Amino acid sequence: MDKPIGVMDSGVGGLTVAKEIMRQLPDEQIIYFGDLRRCPYGDRPLEEVRQYTVEVADHLVSRGVKMIVVACNTATAAALSDLEDRYDIPVIGVINPGARSAIQSSNNQDVIVLATNATVNSGAYRDAIHHINGGFRVTSLACPKFVPIVEELRYKDKVVVRVALHQTLKGLLGTSADTVILGCTHYPLLAGEIRDFFGGRKNVIDSGYETAREVSSIMTYSRSHAAPGNRKTHVMIVNGDSSRFEYILGDWIPFIDYKIEEIDLEAY
Amino acid sequence: MDKPIGVMDSGVGGLTVAKEIMRQLPDEQIIYFGDLRRCPYGDRPLEEVRQYTVEVADHLVSRGVKMIVVACNTATAAALSDLEDRYDIPVIGVINPGARSAIQSSNNQDVIVLATNATVNSGAYRDAIHHINGGFRVTSLACPKFVPIVEELRYKDKVVVRVALHQTLKGLLGTSADTVILGCTHYPLLAGEIRDFFGGRKNVIDSGYETAREVSSIMTYSRSHAAPGNRKTHVMIVNGDSSRFEYILGDWIPFIDYKIEEIDLEAY
Repeated sequence: MDKPIGVMDSGVGGLTVAKEIMRQLPDEQIIYFGDLRRCPYGDRPLEEVRQYTVEVADHLVSRGVKMIVVACNTATAAALSDLEDRYDIPVIGVINPGARSAIQSSNNQDVIVLATNATVNSGAYRDAIHHINGGFRVTSLACPKFVPIVEELRYKDKVVVRVALHQTLKGLLGTSADTVILGCTHYPLLAGEIRDFFGGRKNVIDSGYETAREVSSIMTYSRSHAAPGNRKTHVMIVNGDSSRFEYILGDWIPFIDYKIEEIDLEAY
Repeated sequence: MDKPIGVMDSGVGGLTVAKEIMRQLPDEQIIYFGDLRRCPYGDRPLEEVRQYTVEVADHLVSRGVKMIVVACNTATAAALSDLEDRYDIPVIGVINPGARSAIQSSNNQDVIVLATNATVNSGAYRDAIHHINGGFRVTSLACPKFVPIVEELRYKDKVVVRVALHQTLKGLLGTSADTVILGCTHYPLLAGEIRDFFGGRKNVIDSGYETAREVSSIMTYSRSHAAPGNRKTHVMIVNGDSSRFEYILGDWIPFIDYKIEEIDLEAY
């Protein structure tokens, strides 16, 4: 089916999910929506996040997408079930795929979730895991230092990253959990250093990597894969000024064919 | 939803898939159907395999299952699309999940499929991979020595296994493929030795492990997970004599709570 996949986030974090969809499903066209004017969602009241998420998803639906990927943990926790009820097309969040991958790969049913304050407070990962398998122990830790490091493009500075990891994660080194979920779409850019921090003794799950696979599963069962060889220009919609977005896009996903649109969501 | 999941195979191979569903989704009840009277399917004409698969699936549907898992590569290749058209409930084969996992984990888009003659000749893995991502190189190898080793419970004899692996796989040692799909539900019992054979240099994908995860994905999106804490006795239906089946079941999946039923499928 030659319709695009809609991917949304408050900002640039969801690009880690978009990048994995492009890698695993190269025939699919993506329309990405970054709600930069109202970013970040993580510090806003839940009801406001829900309202913004529905507005952005409505805009993507008006563009004719065949599926919506909520590539933001905060928005998923706030609005996934509303979006599922609102549209006939599939809606995929980042929490269920990460939870499912942890259930699959953990051998001792003991997992850690690293996330923003908002996601930790929502308990969404614990609920998603227990909905599928009640035997799991789920420990969550808020990591407020991580998003700024990624947003400010300091994630390539190993010293900065290692200091932040040590300060935030040192209490987890001796824990029995064998699996760590990266419960924020910014964290995959720190994944290599996080794996090294745990000395390879904990399995580190990247939600973008897992969400792209779940997109593939749902497209197979809804028979909506793009025709082989379909390669269209991706569309990047930015609510607000796009200069910083384009700079980060070029750093994270170089060499893709895209066009950018600045819009004012209030007009919709 | 408190309905069981139907899992089918010509014999015992599908138990490797059932075992992973039990591990990842412990609240789900399974009705397993082993068509031992007509096992193996792999040497029969495709049309006959298709007919048998539909008969078995019809029987599972008559038992009120909420989903059918075709836990046999030969039956999946022969009949998956027929079953998808025939029922309103989801039907999941083992080929798409294995193909999807290979696409996800390969870094060089170069994969090897190990399978029975029937599955290799069907080209089903190559087709499934190319349907999602046309850039992959897919090399298939029939491994006729592997099923008898597992069926005759010689898989614990490291000498027997290593000789068979060397004879069958030695030509693959120097290849560039970074991922190997175990395209037969018997092969996961040899997975550890196959990983060692490749010296950890090729990622080995277990279709049962991946199929159980896909069952979980589809249940989330169809909202049909069992209620937490639901633990019912599994049902093992054997078309024919069950003594050998029960012996292997006890060896592969000890400590589960199940009841066995011998039936004569011709009566249906």
